[in-house]
Amino acid sequence: MIGLRDVTNDPIVPADCADLLDKPIVAHLATVRPDGTPQSNVMWFGWDGSRIRMSFTTKRQKLRNVQREPQVALTLVDPESPYRFLEVRGSVESVEPDEAVRFYKSLQERYSMPLPIKDGDERIIVTIRPHTYLTMAGRAPQPSEN
Amino acid sequence: MIGLRDVTNDPIVPADCADLLDKPIVAHLATVRPDGTPQSNVMWFGWDGSRIRMSFTTKRQKLRNVQREPQVALTLVDPESPYRFLEVRGSVESVEPDEAVRFYKSLQERYSMPLPIKDGDERIIVTIRPHTYLTMAGRAPQPSEN
Repeated sequence: MIGLRDVTNDPIVPADCADLLDKPIVAHLATVRPDGTPQSNVMWFGWDGSRIRMSFTTKRQKLRNVQREPQVALTLVDPESPYRFLEVRGSVESVEPDEAVRFYKSLQERYSMPLPIKDGDERIIVTIRPHTYLTMAGRAPQPSEN
Repeated sequence: MIGLRDVTNDPIVPADCADLLDKPIVAHLATVRPDGTPQSNVMWFGWDGSRIRMSFTTKRQKLRNVQREPQVALTLVDPESPYRFLEVRGSVESVEPDEAVRFYKSLQERYSMPLPIKDGDERIIVTIRPHTYLTMAGRAPQPSEN
């Protein structure tokens, strides 16, 4: 069991969890729906060392959620150790067209899943600027307590 | 790529994902903070066939979140296949003391992690009544599109 003092709350990526952002693992994205209730989605993401990028389409609920409430949170778990995980809080900084579906194709490559793309004209890039990283990696084998 | 028509939206657990609730995998719990922004936490949970139960403590932010906004969402991913996952939406039905820490001990057993319990007197049982299950298991190898 751990106390809150064991939870780090950093403006930079904790070194012991940085690899989770580099790996092609799925992120669990929490957004807030227009009625104020939460939504959780399993998502691919890209990471360039300072921003998290995801591919939405113009037709999905998630986009409407972040247009109204740009603050998001996401959790990443090491697939090989469920007690090594990272929570990222941040805000949607931009929503842009995915020109020539280049970004989505880069995600397909990152996740080794190059499938035919049927909704390329609806694909958009959602860029998240993290402001807080929470982790307990290496501290205690215990799910999140914050 | 899939369309929304491929996302099931059921009031009962989809048979092809029911095992995810039975397994000792971690859930990613989305709640809404009092300021209206989302939070995601990696959580142990129990499942009795109709309710999801989690162990919080009286001192954590999560409790304050659900006391103000009882609607929650959570996602579960098959550790062996990241494209088999389930989103559950529901509401917190009750918050009760964890008498003799029995529930938390049952979670320790479920997750094979019987550690000394130092905060037993703060442990509470949060019971979630699901109202919607969303899944794309067996339909397309694609992260959530709803």
